[in-house]
Amino acid sequence: NTMRVAVIGGEGIGPEVTAQASRVLAWFSERRRLPIAVEEADFGLEAYRRTGKVIPPETRAAIAGADAILFGATGGPETAEVPPEARREGSLLKLRRSLDLYANLRPIVTDPALSESAPLKERVLEGVDFVIVRELSSGIYFGEPRGIETRPDGSRRGFNTNSYTTEEIRRVARFAFELARSRRGRLCSVDKANVMEASVLWREEVIALHAEEFPDVELSHMYVDNAAMQIVRAPSQFDVMVTDNIFGDILSDCAAMAAGSLGMLPSASLGPADPQGRRPALYEPVHGSAPDIAGRGIANPLGSILSVAMMLRLSLGRSDDAILLERAVGDALGRGARTADIAEPGRSPVSTAAMGDAVLAALDRL
Amino acid sequence: NTMRVAVIGGEGIGPEVTAQASRVLAWFSERRRLPIAVEEADFGLEAYRRTGKVIPPETRAAIAGADAILFGATGGPETAEVPPEARREGSLLKLRRSLDLYANLRPIVTDPALSESAPLKERVLEGVDFVIVRELSSGIYFGEPRGIETRPDGSRRGFNTNSYTTEEIRRVARFAFELARSRRGRLCSVDKANVMEASVLWREEVIALHAEEFPDVELSHMYVDNAAMQIVRAPSQFDVMVTDNIFGDILSDCAAMAAGSLGMLPSASLGPADPQGRRPALYEPVHGSAPDIAGRGIANPLGSILSVAMMLRLSLGRSDDAILLERAVGDALGRGARTADIAEPGRSPVSTAAMGDAVLAALDRL
Ligand SMILES: CC(C)[C@H](C(=O)O)[C@@H](O)C(=O)O
Ligand SMILES: CC(C)[C@H](C(=O)O)[C@@H](O)C(=O)O
Repeated sequence: NTMRVAVIGGEGIGPEVTAQASRVLAWFSERRRLPIAVEEADFGLEAYRRTGKVIPPETRAAIAGADAILFGATGGPETAEVPPEARREGSLLKLRRSLDLYANLRPIVTDPALSESAPLKERVLEGVDFVIVRELSSGIYFGEPRGIETRPDGSRRGFNTNSYTTEEIRRVARFAFELARSRRGRLCSVDKANVMEASVLWREEVIALHAEEFPDVELSHMYVDNAAMQIVRAPSQFDVMVTDNIFGDILSDCAAMAAGSLGMLPSASLGPADPQGRRPALYEPVHGSAPDIAGRGIANPLGSILSVAMMLRLSLGRSDDAILLERAVGDALGRGARTADIAEPGRSPVSTAAMGDAVLAALDRL
Repeated sequence: NTMRVAVIGGEGIGPEVTAQASRVLAWFSERRRLPIAVEEADFGLEAYRRTGKVIPPETRAAIAGADAILFGATGGPETAEVPPEARREGSLLKLRRSLDLYANLRPIVTDPALSESAPLKERVLEGVDFVIVRELSSGIYFGEPRGIETRPDGSRRGFNTNSYTTEEIRRVARFAFELARSRRGRLCSVDKANVMEASVLWREEVIALHAEEFPDVELSHMYVDNAAMQIVRAPSQFDVMVTDNIFGDILSDCAAMAAGSLGMLPSASLGPADPQGRRPALYEPVHGSAPDIAGRGIANPLGSILSVAMMLRLSLGRSDDAILLERAVGDALGRGARTADIAEPGRSPVSTAAMGDAVLAALDRL
């Protein structure tokens, strides 16, 4: 049974980095006989120019039929010509929500080659290896009521609702507990229970679930402000961290520097499993569309390439291939391949495509 | 006309660090003829044990009559014996809200002595000098509706409201613009306008106010996730940053490491000015009650001492004395005084009181 993979480069640097990740995927398909069928699909500004829709019908069909999606990036100032309604209709947020991708995994792993490489060595501490599990389909991103209202005196009020139900908390917490169990057995739940009722409920449900189903996992709790500091101060203390949508958004960018660059970070977003155990899955680098460097062929494709490793592991059941790919990335870095974001001063960086070449060469070697 | 200063040590390490800040305040009162009257007041667990109230009536009176409050810290697990209602009634949040302390200033400044001192030199980058202006009396901390409801099927939902009005945004933005104008002329406004309507309004009002009253200030905007990363990556890019209540909470802890330790950071929280130009003002270190080290005399008092410098500048109109105190802190650090949180490996740290001594000795010298 062939797995269908939809490849959606999107906007900004999205297509550039995704092109390299696609080459890597093709390598696995050929050399490791991965049973996949790849379908490329349009998304964003170009799609809108061509079809009047940010997500054209063919793309919707490709998404609906896919077992896994490899996504590039979306957004940025260059898209101002797309009217807000069309943009909202075709937003990444809507896509996440419509597939109910509630569990967003963001691993933060430091590569030994980078932790020895100036100017990163002061920032890339050795032995950092943790995963942020971010709740991705609820919270303040989607809560109702929301809006901007004009008041009788002409002034305005903008408001959003942070909302979490028992079920929304438990399913992402369960995912995180299971992940922790498969790793070093430690879960840190991050909230702001000293201020928000949504966090009070979050903490109560995490504690209850721990007692009911995961007493073997070591559970701790941290307030989000302290977590932000601890991620900068001593990131190697963490194994798995679980948190809500907006806190996960902020904390993962806060953690990015520990890996040397936001460009290094992959992610996986998973929805609920169907009776056959299949779950909707979207893989994308944590970075955005970076319009300032788009089209110049200098972006770091490793976030996207490492997202392919997550796909191999989580959607294709190929842990050995995932490990092979992660080793190949380490090998390429170990031999000195550096895009601009992680380059040492005085040494000239390689292009996006050359980094792809370096990973493919490493795959051939390993 | 004498200024009344209420000194409230509070809980945990609060009383220990505040004792040192009080000595410093007394030094200025005597040596620099500061026209102040100090009144000490109880707050928290001890107060509750004695009077059944976290904030006893005398403390309320001291607060109401004060021109400035020097606050230590509150909270922590040791306070479990205080029932939640009493705790809520006497919370720091209620105090901030009742005084309408909407502008919370958190300067992040790196000391040259620390940026040359292992193990901090990798983290304490030279030339960092910015101020986070955090909106402190609105947003998700206080928005209504809020609560936890039980639904017909027995499951629960926790919810909070992030709410900002035109006026709430403009007054804190105006404060930040004015501060930027008195510094290097640059303001970065941080929001999540790609997700929240409250942030869309925030950004619109900041842009409008800029055009109307502060065209000379250089204004930029950043999403909160990117801001968290930039604060870690390159904090010296910032002059003044303005943001909402919860984002300011997270970002200031994220920035703390740039200063070497959370223990180094002071803060000032200001309310609206009355017709005479007086405004309620509360000065406190950014750190909390740190129950794990409370009572051991090892906490860093510099966050509290530097809060006194902010009081000298903002409530007492004594910029020259503020600068003197900041120089004295730099001098004490330059001569090697280090509490445990900022100590070099292999060198024994000084106590809370000895750090106070070092600052007082520096004041005598300068
Ligand atoms: C683009 C934006 C809406 C998005 C988010 O906030 O989720 C991004 O920052 C991310 O982390 O994927
Ligand atoms: C103790 C807590 C409620 C408080 C806050 O979130 O404001 C603290 O973290 C702070 O930053 O002063």
